[in-house]
Amino acid sequence: MPELRKDPIVNRWVIIASERSRRPLDLVEPREAPRPGLCPFCPGQEDKTPPEILAYRPHDGPGARRDAPGWRLRVFPNRYPALVVEGELDRHGEGVYDRMNGIGAHEVIVETPDHGKTLADLAEPEIESVLAAYRDRLVDLRRDLRFKYVMIFKNQGVAAGASLEHPHSQLIALPVTPKVVSEEIEGAREYFRFKERCVFCDIVKQERRERTRLVFENDACVVVEPYAPKFPFETWVLPKRHLSAFENAHHEFGGIANALRVALGKLRRALDDPPYNYILHTSPFDQHGNPFYHWHIEIMPTLSRVAGFEWGSGFYINPTPPEEAARFLREISL
Amino acid sequence: MPELRKDPIVNRWVIIASERSRRPLDLVEPREAPRPGLCPFCPGQEDKTPPEILAYRPHDGPGARRDAPGWRLRVFPNRYPALVVEGELDRHGEGVYDRMNGIGAHEVIVETPDHGKTLADLAEPEIESVLAAYRDRLVDLRRDLRFKYVMIFKNQGVAAGASLEHPHSQLIALPVTPKVVSEEIEGAREYFRFKERCVFCDIVKQERRERTRLVFENDACVVVEPYAPKFPFETWVLPKRHLSAFENAHHEFGGIANALRVALGKLRRALDDPPYNYILHTSPFDQHGNPFYHWHIEIMPTLSRVAGFEWGSGFYINPTPPEEAARFLREISL
Repeated sequence: MPELRKDPIVNRWVIIASERSRRPLDLVEPREAPRPGLCPFCPGQEDKTPPEILAYRPHDGPGARRDAPGWRLRVFPNRYPALVVEGELDRHGEGVYDRMNGIGAHEVIVETPDHGKTLADLAEPEIESVLAAYRDRLVDLRRDLRFKYVMIFKNQGVAAGASLEHPHSQLIALPVTPKVVSEEIEGAREYFRFKERCVFCDIVKQERRERTRLVFENDACVVVEPYAPKFPFETWVLPKRHLSAFENAHHEFGGIANALRVALGKLRRALDDPPYNYILHTSPFDQHGNPFYHWHIEIMPTLSRVAGFEWGSGFYINPTPPEEAARFLREISL
Repeated sequence: MPELRKDPIVNRWVIIASERSRRPLDLVEPREAPRPGLCPFCPGQEDKTPPEILAYRPHDGPGARRDAPGWRLRVFPNRYPALVVEGELDRHGEGVYDRMNGIGAHEVIVETPDHGKTLADLAEPEIESVLAAYRDRLVDLRRDLRFKYVMIFKNQGVAAGASLEHPHSQLIALPVTPKVVSEEIEGAREYFRFKERCVFCDIVKQERRERTRLVFENDACVVVEPYAPKFPFETWVLPKRHLSAFENAHHEFGGIANALRVALGKLRRALDDPPYNYILHTSPFDQHGNPFYHWHIEIMPTLSRVAGFEWGSGFYINPTPPEEAARFLREISL
């Protein structure tokens, strides 16, 4: 069983997901990607994955059968999960250290049956379905009282950590709130205590007024390059309406899908189809409906030449001012 | 001039080091490494670097001239600095945001005249000289009252962010304490408040007792795989004697050089000469001589297959238990 372990100094939990008897050099040598047609995420290969948890498919007629082709979107447990769903939490200490059983959920959301597409290629209603699937899973998983947080993210491209090419997102439900989420929540709470306003609402207002870091805007959200980005072309999709939890934003999924398609499409053209990660930032389950936190999506292109020691030190040197990145992205037409 | 900008939510400062008019694709296309003989860090090429700040060379006779060959180790300002030394700090707000002029120092420490070596190839007295150079620069820079912290680090290999092959470390003096350093200091302070003991001293004791994560030990320090490592084969060099500031550890530089050589040598053999980063963790200048913080070195091999979304999310999934990594490293003989 995987383990959660806490760093005794900075209180960061990490998952130690021991993959049975891997030799150190397995970490270095690239694994081979499956050939097209053998991709376990493709229609017709449903028996290569664990049984589906959720799928969007016609209600009857051909294609209505579970774990069979005909789906538009399909969710199933990760075959190599970082955390496992069965078991007790069992927290205990080991001298100065703390550990916990690696209880959680680790799921794969296959965004389209089409192996050769990327999320940026999908039509807006298809992207809306991806957002709806995120919501459906969040609503289901928050009923499990062992879970404090669900992290939803996407790795696009090998350099961003994707092991399979077929467009997919991932979800990890956790029995602890990750440090980076707590810090964001605490920071937003502090700001609210001081100003009695949501910091993200203030950012949306300032970015719409200044426009130097604004990439795109529609009724539902703004796409901006943040003021103090960790990475070149880091891009945020910030909803205009204050909601702490993503699940409650479903009335705006159309506008969000539109903004996400524009953001990903512009980044693809600007940076020659870069690998990227995006992360859905939403409120922990026990903090829902608060006035200080504001859900959003952060997209980070993985430009390996400028990564480096930053990810080990937490100290970031970014060679690209966000104003320059925003100007460049604004000029790109899709 | 570069800028320091603060994220308004999590209070992380980043350096926006705008390199004049780079186009976005310059971030993607690899820059070419200089051919051997044209390396600006090699002896005979001293006119390709800014004038030296420090060098270890014979006191007289041939080789005693500044900015000329004959040195064993040489320190000079980075030609493309992330921060600049001249100017006023000038902190001010911009709406919800905070910025500061990019005042600081950014220096290069060339560890040996020999282009083809790596730090792990150097003799222990040579590694000791590298530590002495770190100390000499820290002692000098802490007199500049604008600086709160000096970060010393090494990027080895292109994937770890090194742009030149010639063995070198870097140093960045900062007008703010980086978030990751403050967090470590605060965590250690909290532990001390609760237990009245240094958390790092406790870790050294527990690791020497349990031995499952111990890689190497000498009179001055232990080399361990930490209990909750962010990355596979993350390796710490922890001095046995409690000292918060690295500068004060000079009596032990021999033992530390020995441990560092062993740690880097074993990692090189285990992981087929991996790119890596190491970071010297030491106390901020205004916290010197405290009972709760304990200087040390953290080494992180850059195994790109397992990096991914972790560095954007701060949430780490590590496939290699440190006990397995330690067993493997212990068995390697140099």
